[in-house]
Amino acid sequence: MIIVMREGATQEQIDAVIERLTKAGVEVHTSVGRYRTVLGVVGDEELVAGLPLEAMPGVEKVMPVLKPYKLVSREFQHESTVIDVRGSTIGPPVFAVIAGPCSVETEEQMIETARFVKQAGATFLRGGAFKPRTSPYSFQGLGEEGLRYLKRASEETGLPVVTEVMEIRQIEVVSEYADVLQIGARNMQNFNLLLEVGKQEKPVLLKRGFSNTIEELLTAAEYIARGGNRKIVLCERGIRTFETATRNTLDISAIPIIKQLSHLPVIVDPSHAAGRADLVAPLSLAALAVGADGVIVEVHPRPAEALCDGPQSLDFPHFEAMMTEIRELAPVVGRVLARKE
Amino acid sequence: MIIVMREGATQEQIDAVIERLTKAGVEVHTSVGRYRTVLGVVGDEELVAGLPLEAMPGVEKVMPVLKPYKLVSREFQHESTVIDVRGSTIGPPVFAVIAGPCSVETEEQMIETARFVKQAGATFLRGGAFKPRTSPYSFQGLGEEGLRYLKRASEETGLPVVTEVMEIRQIEVVSEYADVLQIGARNMQNFNLLLEVGKQEKPVLLKRGFSNTIEELLTAAEYIARGGNRKIVLCERGIRTFETATRNTLDISAIPIIKQLSHLPVIVDPSHAAGRADLVAPLSLAALAVGADGVIVEVHPRPAEALCDGPQSLDFPHFEAMMTEIRELAPVVGRVLARKE
Amino acid sequence: MIIVMREGATQEQIDAVIERLTKAGVEVHTSVGRYRTVLGVVGDEELVAGLPLEAMPGVEKVMPVLKPYKLVSREFQHESTVIDVRGSTIGPPVFAVIAGPCSVETEEQMIETARFVKQAGATFLRGGAFKPRTSPYSFQGLGEEGLRYLKRASEETGLPVVTEVMEIRQIEVVSEYADVLQIGARNMQNFNLLLEVGKQEKPVLLKRGFSNTIEELLTAAEYIARGGNRKIVLCERGIRTFETATRNTLDISAIPIIKQLSHLPVIVDPSHAAGRADLVAPLSLAALAVGADGVIVEVHPRPAEALCDGPQSLDFPHFEAMMTEIRELAPVVGRVLARKE
Amino acid sequence: MIIVMREGATQEQIDAVIERLTKAGVEVHTSVGRYRTVLGVVGDEELVAGLPLEAMPGVEKVMPVLKPYKLVSREFQHESTVIDVRGSTIGPPVFAVIAGPCSVETEEQMIETARFVKQAGATFLRGGAFKPRTSPYSFQGLGEEGLRYLKRASEETGLPVVTEVMEIRQIEVVSEYADVLQIGARNMQNFNLLLEVGKQEKPVLLKRGFSNTIEELLTAAEYIARGGNRKIVLCERGIRTFETATRNTLDISAIPIIKQLSHLPVIVDPSHAAGRADLVAPLSLAALAVGADGVIVEVHPRPAEALCDGPQSLDFPHFEAMMTEIRELAPVVGRVLARKE
Repeated sequence: MIIVMREGATQEQIDAVIERLTKAGVEVHTSVGRYRTVLGVVGDEELVAGLPLEAMPGVEKVMPVLKPYKLVSREFQHESTVIDVRGSTIGPPVFAVIAGPCSVETEEQMIETARFVKQAGATFLRGGAFKPRTSPYSFQGLGEEGLRYLKRASEETGLPVVTEVMEIRQIEVVSEYADVLQIGARNMQNFNLLLEVGKQEKPVLLKRGFSNTIEELLTAAEYIARGGNRKIVLCERGIRTFETATRNTLDISAIPIIKQLSHLPVIVDPSHAAGRADLVAPLSLAALAVGADGVIVEVHPRPAEALCDGPQSLDFPHFEAMMTEIRELAPVVGRVLARKE
Repeated sequence: MIIVMREGATQEQIDAVIERLTKAGVEVHTSVGRYRTVLGVVGDEELVAGLPLEAMPGVEKVMPVLKPYKLVSREFQHESTVIDVRGSTIGPPVFAVIAGPCSVETEEQMIETARFVKQAGATFLRGGAFKPRTSPYSFQGLGEEGLRYLKRASEETGLPVVTEVMEIRQIEVVSEYADVLQIGARNMQNFNLLLEVGKQEKPVLLKRGFSNTIEELLTAAEYIARGGNRKIVLCERGIRTFETATRNTLDISAIPIIKQLSHLPVIVDPSHAAGRADLVAPLSLAALAVGADGVIVEVHPRPAEALCDGPQSLDFPHFEAMMTEIRELAPVVGRVLARKE
Repeated sequence: MIIVMREGATQEQIDAVIERLTKAGVEVHTSVGRYRTVLGVVGDEELVAGLPLEAMPGVEKVMPVLKPYKLVSREFQHESTVIDVRGSTIGPPVFAVIAGPCSVETEEQMIETARFVKQAGATFLRGGAFKPRTSPYSFQGLGEEGLRYLKRASEETGLPVVTEVMEIRQIEVVSEYADVLQIGARNMQNFNLLLEVGKQEKPVLLKRGFSNTIEELLTAAEYIARGGNRKIVLCERGIRTFETATRNTLDISAIPIIKQLSHLPVIVDPSHAAGRADLVAPLSLAALAVGADGVIVEVHPRPAEALCDGPQSLDFPHFEAMMTEIRELAPVVGRVLARKE
Repeated sequence: MIIVMREGATQEQIDAVIERLTKAGVEVHTSVGRYRTVLGVVGDEELVAGLPLEAMPGVEKVMPVLKPYKLVSREFQHESTVIDVRGSTIGPPVFAVIAGPCSVETEEQMIETARFVKQAGATFLRGGAFKPRTSPYSFQGLGEEGLRYLKRASEETGLPVVTEVMEIRQIEVVSEYADVLQIGARNMQNFNLLLEVGKQEKPVLLKRGFSNTIEELLTAAEYIARGGNRKIVLCERGIRTFETATRNTLDISAIPIIKQLSHLPVIVDPSHAAGRADLVAPLSLAALAVGADGVIVEVHPRPAEALCDGPQSLDFPHFEAMMTEIRELAPVVGRVLARKE
């Protein structure tokens, strides 16, 4: 940690900061420059991370050197995490494809979709039973009934199920039916929910909030990891910017950065990032090329009749075409599309 | 609702959209332009709000005309909502001042602060017992013990208490001690929590997410209002932008816009917006001048020793100086600072 | 300057950085922490500001301590700059009001507007002759003819004229007619233009780019100041964010921050920030309350017929009403509205 | 164009808008809904594009249907534009690689770099002689001397030269030495400069402003095209967002969107987008996979000694490694890397 004192800070003020740091158990180096004094903390930065140094007189700014997360960092675990879920894998060298409708609508829709995406090469099935909707007047999902349809489709096809859990009270019931618990973008900093999914055993798919930094995403994952659950998949799904041509701006650079900073697998959600079906295939290819460990895409038998997110859902022919492209590209960038049967 | 068809959309595609709309129960006007056809929905837009028209072939974009909220709109209730909480008021012509520490630390700290802010003119007491923290390694609040200290400080001074509720399971215990339940910025779209606080009776202070639009804030308030609870106070607390000189960018324009669109009171949180104590007073004056119904500010007896948010907390002399300025400015813009005793 | 080395940086890499810095003429302090080594530069940071240290092996990040501007900083000149232009003043304790149409349309329009805004209390006249327009198909301004009308209106009323110069070739002709040269937001980092207006004598009104930081604004002003011209007025006019309810988001916090960092006067342009006439008055009052040195607002005799920016232009009655409010508020915050006659 | 009237707009106000539109030469359709009236313009939207309808009483909002550009649109010219510059091509199916240092430093550096990037597969040489720098105290480029070195390196290798022109006065001299004139991000809306490069014959590489929308980029290109020059290459180079892990956020989705909207070639600048050399290769591969027509990357013989942008420059071995990956990936996505010799 570096503490930059203001120009004109008095010796008394500087000494007060040094005293505070020393008491907390670290050593302090003092650099007296032409314009101002800079203090460098030597020792365990965690001992002083919580001190309100910026509120002390004479302090201009405090620059932390340590990252605010540990268990999920690449420094803590060098080897990449690979998660296996009933024969489907997320983590290098596999490129996982999670596909299915935005929301579960009927049993037929789920089974029809599951069969199709499986034969086209998907390795996980997605579908929402509890739906977070901006408007209280929109369709809110089928709830437990939807979970049952998901499970039926999973039994039919063998594909493990990824579905969202919106609040603590839903964890139990969702865990009964699903294989991977998804935390949605709006809940990325719902810290109580993070703590609770950290205490159970199913893998967690954690989506980046549309306005959260990469560091905040990793720190949210740390909440889960601290509970004991390290089977965490991160998901980049677009951030909010001034550009309105897409619903969000896919932050493709986040993928190689997260791979450097963390050992956790990271996938891309091009459907929610763009909000437009026609961009799903090119963005999925970009995700594969840039080093992502998979994609999660919305597929619906008849997008124009979907109860939710129709405009961004692929129909079957377009999903199949995309999978063909992915299969061609994958080996060139060292990836395999596979499911053990 | 306006549906713009693509250039080159076929008559068949246009007819399919018209048929879909007509079936849903609305009338459709067709405008055939030189380049493209535009369809205008006449009748109740709600009947068609959920249709995935953008996924239909030939559709370029769909532009809603109706707002996604109703109960909280100025059109629904012309008169401004004024909320009275045990003698303290939020809503015109009152300018409410909610003050107190970021987090409750000790009983002495709370009583000392409550007494001071009351004599300086504050009308509500704030303080966090359950603290949402970006890092799992930061101080997470005293929990129910903190609530007890808050209540003691309230009994001492008569000031009603505003405090945060982070998850559904906390609603009951927080309601026992607090007068106003605060929903934090990170929970603005925690829809389950919104629904639950909408079902209970205490007023709700709803903070704008740092990356949510004004429309989303009002739609989140609609979730609460639909549950039956219309005692909602909105709070602008800064949005996330590229500027790093402040922690967030206070969206001061949001105040007059919200006052036009909604009958609910709206206040400003300059402490979290700026993240710097030295901006709290000027931004509070700006809030008053622009038409806000109050401010919520962090005050701590000794900011340099605060367990949380020290750098943005006012000490007692600065809070008192700010209150003097507010008192001078208020009558010029038609506001009163008052508490019935 | 602080140089943070990567975890695992070799002693050789550390030594190479130290050698590079020492050669450049500064002294280096080394802090060896548990995880990594941090180097602190002692001495004149400018000597090393240009070194590509981040590209050296083993370097994680470089954190400058010095600001990238000097002449415009409050540290360089403690006293606030006050600029006098033919009897009209910008700078404390004056609150300047610059008013007039977006674009000069006719001589009658200019004279009618100039007379009205003057009697209502404006102290400068604005109007665009060269107009930067997003679309090449929009009205581009009257050019020199417009400048003549501006000058005529100025002669009629005594109000000094502020008008935009879009490129170097226009400086000469604009200077003939205008009193203050405005650099538009899109040209804030047109460095050649900045250098040229820095070499001439008329005061310069420099608008913040809608996507530039406060530090970049001050560094752009430094370009002008270095040429010799220190009569610079800064102008906050809204930044680009995800919020679409306003055209831009007025960054009201920028005002007190700039006043701390720089001795230059800073004004607010609520018309361009909001893009809506109904927000101009409340935002102007907020600007006054927060400590701005003035406002620049668009006023048009008949906004619905304006060739440019009609929706954000005040008509005469609304401008007059706003001036009444400003006049009442100004003395409370220690400001005067004045023009020496 | 769609005009939405406010709830409660009077018949008189509606009639005034209709009259205004009719006078301008278009036909108007009226849709009277339950809550409000919506007017649809039938006919040539350009006739009414400039009218300040939003300033008319009773108007809530105006939604244009037409795009603000024409000559550069895919609707105007269906076939993709392919630009040939002395044997090097930009446009499908070619994937162009433009490489070279941020700034020209010495003749040796340029020749060394040009030879290397050519043998590694680059098809254009880049290098800055006139440098826009945020700080007036940074290295500003060698000017005409730098242009001479560029030309020498071009003569040595046959690679055509891309270099920036910062202001109108430089067009003539830059054209003498360079093959493609680059307009930098900060000048994307320097309309006078756009008009002037539109009048000359050399191809123009137009970079997206870091805070400009895709629509604004295309409208800026329209300025150039209107002057007669349609040899325009668009370049996505990252936009400004709240994320600080990268210098800018590469908007990868912009590529397929621009390819849909416009016939112009579009390339990606991963060096400026990320500001970090380690991201250049993965982002280049993503650009290729998503459908871009090329990349422009910074390469320097010794990045740690570069006078500018060292941290984001590739050294020779890394550039060569990246080219190997690009060569393997290109045919899978239907691209060729080629230069006619």
